[in-house]
Amino acid sequence: MTYCVGLYLDEGLVMLSDTRTNAGVDHISTFCKMQVEEIAGERMIVLLSSGNLAISQAVWNRLQEGVWLDGQQHTLRDVPTMFRAAQLAGAAVRAVFDADGPALSAQNIAFDIALLLGGQIGGQPQRLFMVYAAGNFIEATADTPFLQIGEHKYGKPILDRALTSATTLADGVKLALISMDSTLRSNLTVGMPLDLLVYREGTQRVALRRRITEDDAYFRAVRDGWSNSLRDAYRAMPGPDWVPG
Amino acid sequence: MTYCVGLYLDEGLVMLSDTRTNAGVDHISTFCKMQVEEIAGERMIVLLSSGNLAISQAVWNRLQEGVWLDGQQHTLRDVPTMFRAAQLAGAAVRAVFDADGPALSAQNIAFDIALLLGGQIGGQPQRLFMVYAAGNFIEATADTPFLQIGEHKYGKPILDRALTSATTLADGVKLALISMDSTLRSNLTVGMPLDLLVYREGTQRVALRRRITEDDAYFRAVRDGWSNSLRDAYRAMPGPDWVPG
Repeated sequence: MTYCVGLYLDEGLVMLSDTRTNAGVDHISTFCKMQVEEIAGERMIVLLSSGNLAISQAVWNRLQEGVWLDGQQHTLRDVPTMFRAAQLAGAAVRAVFDADGPALSAQNIAFDIALLLGGQIGGQPQRLFMVYAAGNFIEATADTPFLQIGEHKYGKPILDRALTSATTLADGVKLALISMDSTLRSNLTVGMPLDLLVYREGTQRVALRRRITEDDAYFRAVRDGWSNSLRDAYRAMPGPDWVPG
Repeated sequence: MTYCVGLYLDEGLVMLSDTRTNAGVDHISTFCKMQVEEIAGERMIVLLSSGNLAISQAVWNRLQEGVWLDGQQHTLRDVPTMFRAAQLAGAAVRAVFDADGPALSAQNIAFDIALLLGGQIGGQPQRLFMVYAAGNFIEATADTPFLQIGEHKYGKPILDRALTSATTLADGVKLALISMDSTLRSNLTVGMPLDLLVYREGTQRVALRRRITEDDAYFRAVRDGWSNSLRDAYRAMPGPDWVPG
């Protein structure tokens, strides 16, 4: 399993992924699920993946070597718009499906892949997409300013309640880490370390990329602080006066 | 879908279920998923169910009419221990599987059922079980003092963080309602009203049974108060000093 989340904020993008992969609970590894294409000042595109690792890596390799789209080969370094970038990622997924789908199907292995693709090219708006295994995709908007792939349920309530597109990048990092922490606690196949990327709108370059390990002081403060806050918050709420004492 | 949660606390049991059933998003109904057998002062047994409604109702009906266990017919009103009650519920599930499983399988319908069974008989300890579709079961202990069936993921983080077996009944009600609220917000197939039962250890009678509707003042206070508390809590946490301003 995997948990990746992307926040689509007025100030920019916050992208966070775990690094655990597993082929059964007795075969656990660490792989980076975040890939970045940057031409500093011109474009910044970040790709997060969940699902089958072989499919994810095949998609990423194809995107680097060039994927056919409308009769021409492209990479994320030469597509003219973020919409074309999402189409290209979808085309890469479909190309892997064409190449590997029948063999996977013969082994009863699901074609399991999902991508988050965020970024900005030139003076165009920043955008954030989620690409499905069928190669089609949806886009985040201000109404729902986050997208998740992988094990998304444990970490969703805090985002539903606290995140808006007006959330600052620093608060977005905080919320993404809280959301990830809820997931880490509840699903063993989501694991440390984490890969974090922060992008500031209008800059076309990575603002921050950070690997967050178990001994990261800030993440530890978030984990402990959040647990304490939740306990304090529920204790401070009045109890029902109709529960017999 | 359904969400039911049972808390196994030193002071007693808190059992909470939603009431929504659906056969597709365009076919939604309200059914009570909580059944109680009480011989006041002698035994109190409560059963919550998730999964296929026809299977759930068949299980409950069989339990009321009598289920064969070790060569004798029993109901929840005459089993001598809670362990036997859990065995009887499992036997009822297996009887429904024997009767309906082949026909369901022919229609490609999964045999989907899970039960929470809690209660206390005479001077024996109170117990809380989760019964699976195979009729086998597990039991809550002080290490993990809650069990969930149905859509359990959204509502789990707050229980993981805040609940212990020393939690009071009033705080348990609060936490169960917070856990339910997180689930209601994220899964449309879990819906109001709610059915709540509180049992005080050592009494062998229901302490409180309450249907909680949309306009229940306390539940509304929990919903609004909790959202506000979460927002305040995350805002009060310091931001990372390494996010570029």
